[in-house]
This record gives sequence, structure tokens and C-alpha cells, in this order.
Amino acid sequence: MNRVGSGAQRILPAICLAAMGACMVNAQANTPLNIMPLPAKVERAEGSLKIDASFRLAFAGYREPRLDRAGVRLERQIQRQTGVVILRSNKSSGPPTLEITTDHESKPVQDLGEDESYTLDVTPIRAKLHAANPLGALRGLQTFLQLIAIAPEDFSVPAVHIEDRPRFPWRGQMIDSGRHFIPLDVIKRNLDGMEAVKMNVFHWHLSENQGFRAESRKFPRLHEQGSDGLFYTQEEIRDVIEYARDRGIRVVPEFDMPGHSTAWFAGYPELASGGGPYAIERQWGVFDPAMDPTDEKTYKFLNEFIGEMAKLFSDQFFHIGGDEVNGKEWDANPKIQAFMKAHKIKNNAELQAYFSGRVQELVTKHKKTPVGWDEVLVPGVPKTIVIQSWRGVDSLAAAAKMGYRGILSNGYYLDLGWSAARHYAMDPLGGPAASLAPEQKQLILGGESCIWSEYVNAENIDSRIWPRNAAIAERLWSPEGTSDVASMYARMETESTRLEWLGLTHRSFQRAMLQRFAGSWTPAEFEALRALAQALEHQKDYSREASAGSPPSSLTPLNRLVDAVYPESDVSQRFSQLVDQFLGSSCKDQAGAAQIRVELERWTSIEDRLQPLAQRSHLVQEAAPASGALSQAAKIAMDALDAIQKGAPISADQKKIQIGSLNALEQQAHKSQLTLPELPAFQKLVEAASNSSLCTVPK
Amino acid sequence: MNRVGSGAQRILPAICLAAMGACMVNAQANTPLNIMPLPAKVERAEGSLKIDASFRLAFAGYREPRLDRAGVRLERQIQRQTGVVILRSNKSSGPPTLEITTDHESKPVQDLGEDESYTLDVTPIRAKLHAANPLGALRGLQTFLQLIAIAPEDFSVPAVHIEDRPRFPWRGQMIDSGRHFIPLDVIKRNLDGMEAVKMNVFHWHLSENQGFRAESRKFPRLHEQGSDGLFYTQEEIRDVIEYARDRGIRVVPEFDMPGHSTAWFAGYPELASGGGPYAIERQWGVFDPAMDPTDEKTYKFLNEFIGEMAKLFSDQFFHIGGDEVNGKEWDANPKIQAFMKAHKIKNNAELQAYFSGRVQELVTKHKKTPVGWDEVLVPGVPKTIVIQSWRGVDSLAAAAKMGYRGILSNGYYLDLGWSAARHYAMDPLGGPAASLAPEQKQLILGGESCIWSEYVNAENIDSRIWPRNAAIAERLWSPEGTSDVASMYARMETESTRLEWLGLTHRSFQRAMLQRFAGSWTPAEFEALRALAQALEHQKDYSREASAGSPPSSLTPLNRLVDAVYPESDVSQRFSQLVDQFLGSSCKDQAGAAQIRVELERWTSIEDRLQPLAQRSHLVQEAAPASGALSQAAKIAMDALDAIQKGAPISADQKKIQIGSLNALEQQAHKSQLTLPELPAFQKLVEAASNSSLCTVPK
Repeated sequence: MNRVGSGAQRILPAICLAAMGACMVNAQANTPLNIMPLPAKVERAEGSLKIDASFRLAFAGYREPRLDRAGVRLERQIQRQTGVVILRSNKSSGPPTLEITTDHESKPVQDLGEDESYTLDVTPIRAKLHAANPLGALRGLQTFLQLIAIAPEDFSVPAVHIEDRPRFPWRGQMIDSGRHFIPLDVIKRNLDGMEAVKMNVFHWHLSENQGFRAESRKFPRLHEQGSDGLFYTQEEIRDVIEYARDRGIRVVPEFDMPGHSTAWFAGYPELASGGGPYAIERQWGVFDPAMDPTDEKTYKFLNEFIGEMAKLFSDQFFHIGGDEVNGKEWDANPKIQAFMKAHKIKNNAELQAYFSGRVQELVTKHKKTPVGWDEVLVPGVPKTIVIQSWRGVDSLAAAAKMGYRGILSNGYYLDLGWSAARHYAMDPLGGPAASLAPEQKQLILGGESCIWSEYVNAENIDSRIWPRNAAIAERLWSPEGTSDVASMYARMETESTRLEWLGLTHRSFQRAMLQRFAGSWTPAEFEALRALAQALEHQKDYSREASAGSPPSSLTPLNRLVDAVYPESDVSQRFSQLVDQFLGSSCKDQAGAAQIRVELERWTSIEDRLQPLAQRSHLVQEAAPASGALSQAAKIAMDALDAIQKGAPISADQKKIQIGSLNALEQQAHKSQLTLPELPAFQKLVEAASNSSLCTVPK
Repeated sequence: MNRVGSGAQRILPAICLAAMGACMVNAQANTPLNIMPLPAKVERAEGSLKIDASFRLAFAGYREPRLDRAGVRLERQIQRQTGVVILRSNKSSGPPTLEITTDHESKPVQDLGEDESYTLDVTPIRAKLHAANPLGALRGLQTFLQLIAIAPEDFSVPAVHIEDRPRFPWRGQMIDSGRHFIPLDVIKRNLDGMEAVKMNVFHWHLSENQGFRAESRKFPRLHEQGSDGLFYTQEEIRDVIEYARDRGIRVVPEFDMPGHSTAWFAGYPELASGGGPYAIERQWGVFDPAMDPTDEKTYKFLNEFIGEMAKLFSDQFFHIGGDEVNGKEWDANPKIQAFMKAHKIKNNAELQAYFSGRVQELVTKHKKTPVGWDEVLVPGVPKTIVIQSWRGVDSLAAAAKMGYRGILSNGYYLDLGWSAARHYAMDPLGGPAASLAPEQKQLILGGESCIWSEYVNAENIDSRIWPRNAAIAERLWSPEGTSDVASMYARMETESTRLEWLGLTHRSFQRAMLQRFAGSWTPAEFEALRALAQALEHQKDYSREASAGSPPSSLTPLNRLVDAVYPESDVSQRFSQLVDQFLGSSCKDQAGAAQIRVELERWTSIEDRLQPLAQRSHLVQEAAPASGALSQAAKIAMDALDAIQKGAPISADQKKIQIGSLNALEQQAHKSQLTLPELPAFQKLVEAASNSSLCTVPK
């Protein structure tokens, strides 16, 4: 980032390994490089390479159209990031700014475990990217893009030597297009985001109780009667696969069976174990309908269906779901019960294992490798299957011990609203997996973040995925031990901005949604609404369902404040840091106290400022419990700050009352299905106000 | 907007004509309807029609696929505006929420002057839209969308009876794709915006010195060598025409000749009057290259070219440009001089008239009606031509007197950065046109806003067009005498938000551009940057070119603060209102004074707060003169406010110095090509501080 004239390059003695987190090398280059995920090895040098209208890239070695397209995207992205005009027609004769050398082709259909390594050398004169194949080149181009930064005189790339390769070969993102249909353009911009953070598998959850989203030409009633008209045509699916391949991303389809399959039965009730009639499910949850594992017609159908989809989806892997069958339709069906008795199948788990085995045979017959959720791992299942663990790292390690390959998704459910730090702490090789034998560790292929879409639609999905997904991407790419959370957050913030240049709307969607709340408004009203939204988070895990008044469904508008807040409030995060710093200074940091006061004052006034809007807007009214909770909780924190600064500690009884009030206010926020992430910081202030040993309170 | 239970509809006695501006009818419905442009006639009633998931629309009378597509768009737009889920598959059997009755078809190719009228009746039970043809239905659907508002209990449409028709038949927007290429998706979202405000002509400026943007299959070197690869294929052009027709918008192409044509000569130098060689022009301005009007080869070429384009563009009208020929190449070409002598052509104006006449013959031969800029109006030109006036309303009136049809663009150049109010004040039938005879007035067809793209690209074009274009659209649609500026601004603000739902980026682009400035930043730094951007405007008219240091070109990045500010600062507008109210209260309004102080404090601190960023970012550094000017000017205003509030008037000499300083600071801002729109308000405060008769200053 630091531009140091045109000084000659000099390799600095210090080598900065990714595992060290922030890479501070020397005084002239003391800003950590904003690369995410962190590369395996980074050596910084002096000087920087200017990026301006003379920018030119050139390819050497193995060539293919995909690389050319990547070059066009690179140039376009440079223009977006910097505003610099780069004319494709303007081909100067001098040496290229960036030369990309690729040794040989990659496989025609991208495969698990292909080489993705690259080296990148940047000097103040030029940049060279070298990779064994186009996949590595794609990864290196993203690193190059991330290195472009604004400088005192220009945009430039710092001189650097990078050697990089992924830790895990399977770094995926699952998108649930079943519960809410996610339009094609939204899928594509998320693929752009995945490319930016070097993810390489798009796991596409295409069928659910609430929708069957892929066109089937063999069984057209699947999408015709199972999707409300909201499905992807085969042409669109091919387009997505091509689009993903261009970005070094495999596309693994999932058709969930035998449960999670009501939408199939809308068009083909004969597949089901119950009597029907069946219609697309509108509610959320685990439902009774399940395929009939005892009827040969089911396997005949699935054979043809899987055959059709195996041709459509080129990837080697084919996901058959297999999760959450409650077995009620099986219990209630005498024919199925008779079958179980005749075949000595003792319980529903065994019946599902039988079904799963049959379906895996079909998948294998169509030359694909099956993937399934935890439940498919039963005794005797063939070793080819890949287990995707939603239950936990324990079951993943157990599977590896038994010789099964696996990927981790437990801990990577983005829809649960966890902090990036919490996702970041999850490691596919953590917990019991850490003590596996090396050859067992090899079986753990990586992980996948998942976004389940009960409360996620086209409008807010980006915000539910990004930027936190970048932390998971780093966990899966960067060397083991990469663990500096502060560095991760700093780089994630910068990456978040870059992701917006790709068209992702994870930040911009909020302003649009809040405008819907307000209709027309004064600037002060809108400012209050925005301050409210940015201070709150939606409830975590599955508590939203628990606290919902009427059961939500796929027809429930996702237009409320709970749908518009960020999953992780950066405002709250900064406030907590301020409070920690202030308390860490034994309450002596007056400037810090002043900053805390400014925030608290903003929050205390929100409830009143929103009154007029709440009169006009049912959406603002609906959020009144949360806005009241925030304002009143901030008032309690303000009283505590006053007590600290006045040197008038509060009594233990007062403290107890205040802490109780804060907890009650948190409960009140839950009425709007929101949570107050500032609460721990508020509690700390109350704690400090009552405890003169925490703060050296001036008498 | 007011929801009044499910009370029966009752037509209110008061009739609210658009000309009255804000429509205040009774206490229950006292919010002016947020319709823009205002309809010809609005009668409000009690109650409102709820918009929820049960929404259904139905068509009656004449049917066509375009109407069905408009219905799909309407439903999608309702979903965007409200978040309500409307499933197309969910066809309830009850009566439709909105019934659209169309009597008969419109012309296959939309024509000038076709009926666009409609009536819309909304009751608390249902809505009925009636139109003679699909064009009127399209207009009415936009009105319906604008009526949907958030209410205390739901989203709803107020009960209302509307009769509406346009004042002028030609309500256009010109986009200059020549100087900067404007990508297809940007064109399309602007067509969406035009539809929203009932504009009906997209004038597409497709060739310029800096670029030839339409694919020609007859003369492929036009786009191949004249566009840097940035052109629209014929398939894309057909797509745009179809897209526009779906929205009731005609597409009039412009190929500017004989001047403004350097890009043609890059591929076909034989058309030019000079010796060449020719290359795409990179600078801005009026240049020498012009077609050779004396060579029959020119007309042979243009005959074939116009023939090709006349087939591609279905509209009846075909724009041949004709502006700003400096004649230097003609003067310097002996062959041309000899031709003029031989044909008794006395000067370059006559030579251009000769050329223009020949080209008009070709256009007519290909069954199109020519349109040209002012300059094409010379004695003897056929009466069929339509004159587009960029010079002024006088020449438009003069043309009408001579029997020529005309459209006004003078006063509607959006790139000049005028306020919406200033554009709004321009009337095609204003000035000398007001005293034309009725049949002459009929010749004035309407007007066109123009966005010339020297300093406009894909990134900021939306902000240069919207929302101000809505004011021009209202001028061209709404009844004569519609003139309440405050009402216009209030409705434009709401319309601005709605336009964002269409994907227009006129507001959201700024945040993205400012992020580019900053790289990484603290929230306080970014807030300062945003406050700076929102307080400033770019220089008006053509002064930007005059104050540019090095001559800007098409390769100059448009990434500076001047490119990121809004043309009309609403922050500044509100501040000016605050100051006027405060002074209007004889400086007694203490709450107003406090609000003024808050704004001034924010501005005075910007310069300091941006210091660290300016160290790191050349783009922030470049804006330093403007940020310094704002902070220092705000300090002067603050001193004035202090003097007023302390009752300590400043002397006449002090006043003179302060006013002089303010003017000097405005000059300083010009170094960043920016202007301080707060200056008049600052001056008023200084004036008031020195003049105790303006304010009753407490002693």
C-alpha cells in the first residue's frame, strides 16, 4: 500500500507467514496486506506497481478461452475498484503490467483435489503470476485484485512475493433455493463472491418441501406443479454451471430424499408413502411426507430422474440429501409395514438405510459419486459416499475413522446469525478430528457454509451470506493456525467493500428496505431508523421460530426490521471495543468516555424520534418493542456512565435492579425477534458503576 | 394513505386539480398524493384498498402479450415496494384487486400522438383501470404503483378517481452513448425510470467524435474501428427497442452528421473532408472533422447506411444531428471550395444546408421523418422535419411560426447540474411560444431532457439523470400551470426512492464511489467524507471544463469527488430552508438556531477529520481545496450565528471581509471543480449578523 517512489525492489529479510495473521514487516510496509483468505506465504518488498490506464495483461504458456474471459473480468474489476479507464483496444507494445503464465490445462470437468496453487511476484515494474493450470491462475488473479489499493499518489499494488495453495480441496457454499426461490442473477453474483474468496464448490439445494426448483423434462410435473412457476430451466442451469466453471467452481446439485420432498409429490403423489393429496408446503419445519422406499416404482422413477440430472450436472458428485425423515408416513402405511416385516427391517432407520443404499446404487450406476447428510452413514454403506456433517465435528471424525470422506457444515450455518469469529473458530480438523491419523485426516475434504432460506430471500440473502462467509473461506483455504481474529475482522471489512463492486448487495439492501418502512420521512426520522437497524441483530439459532407469534410461512413477507438488520452489527462491535478500552483504562480515558456517551445518546433518543414514523407505518410500529428496548437499555448504560464519571458508585441492590432491567429489555426486543448485541457492554458499564475496584472512580 | 377502516367509499365534494399542486381535500385525506407527474384530474374519497398476498390483477377487453408482461412487472414492482409475496400461481377465484380494461390495440409501431389517456378508480373494495389502448393502460399502471403507500396497518392505495392524459405528445430523454459508452443494462434501467414518470421517447445519441456505438453490417468498420469495442450489436438494439415498446416508449436513433463524426472516419476516412488520418477523438469539444458534402460517394454511403438503420430502428422518426460544424475542414479543402464556387454556395452554412437537404431526402426515401438540431432549420427545408431546439425557446417559437414542428431541449440539459426547480420552470410553451396562435402551439410537440456524457459514465449516469428528470417529465405531462415547486420537490423525493426499486443507482452509487476514495477507514473518517460529498455540488454549466487543470478526455477516470457528488444537494437545500426560517423568525427560533449550529459544526470539523485520509488517498487529497473551503466557510457562518445569538453585531467592514472570504472560498472549491451550494445561506447569516434590523438581536 505504501508507495515508495520507484525504488528498486529489495526482498526484505522478514518472512511473514499467514499463520502470523497481520504481516508487519518493516516501517515502510507496516500495513497488513488486505488479502482474504490469507496466502500460505507472503514476502513483502519495497515499492509498488502503479495501476493506471496503461495497465495491460498478457498470457503465456497454456492458453484457453476461460483464461481470456478471466482477463476481461480482471480488467473490469480493476475499473470498478479504481475508476481507472482500461481500453481493451489500447494494446501498447511495451511489456505487460501483469503476465500470467499457465503450464497446462486443468481437467475438462473440474475435479476434487486439482492443483489450485500459484505464485505471484510483484515488483515496481511489473507483476508475474504463475500457476500449473487455469485454476491456480484464477486464484492468483483474485489475490492480485485484492492487492490493488489506493495510495497517496495513485492506485497501486505493493511489491510482494506470494506462494499460495489451499489447505482443503473442498471449500463450498450451499444455497437453499428450495424454501425461497433465489433468482439466477442472485446466484451468479454469489458465485462472483465465492470466486473472490477462493471457494470452489457451489452446493445447490434444489428440492425441498416448499419447492422443486430444477426443470425436469422427463418428469415435468416436478417443476410445473412443485414450484409456483419459480424454477431454473435446464438452459439456465447449464449457464450457471458454465459460469461457475469460469470461476473455478464446481456445481454439486442436491435433490433431497426420501424426506424434505413434499414438492415432488404435488406432481407425482405416487412416489409418496401417504395417501395425499399433496400440495407445496408453505410452513417451515420437518414434515411427514416421504418417498415410499418399498415400491419399485419409486426406484424406476429415481433411476430415470437421476439419469437425467446426472447428464445435466457435469460434476462428479451428486448430493442425495437424506436428512430429517420423521417416519410418520411409513409408520402409518400397512404396505410399508408389511414390507419391513417381510424383509426383516427392524425400524425406520434401517428402512431409510435400505432406501439410501438403493439410491446410491442408482447414483453410482449413472457414474456419479454420492454425497449425503450425516444420516446416510449407516453400517455397510459403500466407502465411496461423502458424508456432509450438519450434526457436528464428532460425527465427521467418526466417519473418517471408519474410512469415509467427509465435509464439515456444522458450525458453518450462516442463517443462524453467528458472528464471523464464531464461524472462524470452527475447524474441520478441530475437536476429535485433531487426533486422527494423518491418512484419516486426508479423508476430511474441507467444509461448506450453508444458507437455509426460511428467512432468506432474493432481497436479503447477500447480507445473510456476506461478509461472514469470507471468514469461513479463510478457514478452509489458509494454513492451519491462521487465527488472528482482529486481523480477520479488519480484512473482512475491506473485503466486504470489494464484494460490493461485484454487485453483491449485503450492505446496500438495508437502505432500500428501510425506505420501504418509512414511505416518506424527515432526515432525522430516517437517521433514527438506520441507527436502530444498525444497532440490532436478528435472534440467533432457531429462536426466531420459537418467538414468532403466528407461524411464519413462505408467504410471510420478509419486510420487517428483523429481515433488514445485519446478522453481525459492526456498530455494536465497535461500541463493545470502546467500552472495553474505557474500562481497561480504569475509566480514565475521557475521550473514550465521550465517544461512548455520543453513541448512548444517539440510542436513547431513538424511541422518541421514531414515534411519528410508528404512527404512519405498521413496519415501524412492529419494531417498537425493540426500539424501546434499545433506548431504555442505553439509558441504563448512560446512568452507569454518569455514576462512574461522577464518582458516585451505585449500590449492589441498584446494580441488581439494573442488570435485571437490561435482561428484561432483551426479552422485550425478542418480541420483534431482535436482540441487543450491546447488552454485554451495557452490563459491563453497570458492573463498573457498582464496583469501585473496577474503575478508579474519582471521589 | 390514510387508512379509514373499511368504510364505504364516498366521493368528496372537493375536486383537486393537478394545477393546484398539493391536493388537500379533507382532514382524513390531507396528505398530497405522491403521484409524479401529477394527473390531469384527481378526486379523493374515503378509505383505502389493502395490498397484500391476495392481490390479483385481471385484464378485460382487448388483450395482448405486452399487457400480460406489464402485469408481471406490476406484480414484481409491488413486491419490491412492499415486500408482500404475490404468487403468480395463486389465482384466487374472487374478484381481482385491480381490473384493467383496454378497448382496442395501439399501433404496431408506437406513433407520435397516440392516445395515452386512462382513468383509474380505486375504492376500498377494488381498483379499476380503463384505457382506450395499451399505452394508456401502461400509464395508468404507473399511477397505481405510485399510489401504494405504507399505512398504520398495511400497505394500501387510497380511494381515488383519476382522469389523466398528457399535455404534450413527445416527452423524451436523450442519452449520449457516444462520448462514454453506456452499457445495455444501464440503458434498460433508465427506460424503466422513464416509464415510471410516463416519458415516451428514448432519443439515443449513437455516434460522436468519441465513439460510433451501433453495429453496422453494411459498414462494419464503423463500429469495429470507431468504438474501442464498446458498441451495441443489432441484436441488442432490437432488444432495447422491444424493451422500450413494452414500456410505451419510442426509440429515436441519432446519427450526428456532418460534424461530430470523427469516429466514423476511423474506419471510413473517405467520408471526411480532410486528409486524415483519423482516429477516435479522446478530447472533448467541437472538432474540425466533418463529412464531405460535395462528394457523391458520401451520399451513396449514407443512403446505404440510413437504409440499414431505418430497417433496424422501427420508429417513424430518424435524427440526423446537424449541430456544431466549425467548417475548418471545408475551408481547407480546395475541392470543396471549388464545388461551392461552381454551385454558387456562398458560405459554410449554405453548404451545410445543402448537405442537410440531401440527407433529409435519403431519410424520406427510406420512409422516415427526419429530426435535427436547430442548425438544420434553414430557408427551404421541407416542412416534415422536426426541429430539436438546444439553443432556446425563442428559436422553437420562431420555427413554429414558420410552420415547423419542434421539441424543446434547451433548459433540459441535465448534465449542466441545474436544480430541478430551474428545469421545472422551463416550459416548451413558455416565453415567446406563449403568444403563438393555437395551431402554431400544436406544432410544439413537447421536449426532451438530454444527458451529454463528457463527465458521465455507467457509474454515475443515473445520478446525473435522476431524480431531476422526474421534474421535467412532470412539466411535459401535467396540465399547464402545474407549478407548485415545494410540492414538486416533496413528490420528487418520494419518486426518487421508488426509482431505486427499479434498480436505478442515483443514490446508492455515491457510497460505492466514496469507498473507493478511502480504501480502509474509520467510521468517523467515512462519515466526514460522506458529509463532505453531500454538502457539495459539481460546478454548473460548462465551468468544469474551464477550471480543469489538464484537459480531460475520455480516458480521464471519473472517480473524483466531483464525479461522486449529487448535482443538487438536498442537505444544502434543507440547510437553506433552516436559515430562511430562522431569519424569518427575526432570529428568535432557538430550536432552528440549534439545528443550524449542528450542521455548521459538522462542516467545520470536516477538514480536520479528513486529514488522515488525505494522507493515504490521492482522491481525498485532490478534494482538499473543497473540504477546506466548506469547513472554513462554515466557520464564518458559525461566527455570524454566534454574533446574532450574542447580540453583538459585526461591523460593516467585518461583514465586507467575511463576504469577501466566502467568495474566495467558493473560488477555492472550484479548484476541485466543486461548488458550495450553502454559500447564499452563509451570506444571509453574515448579512444578518451585521444588520440589527434583520434580526431583533437581544442586547
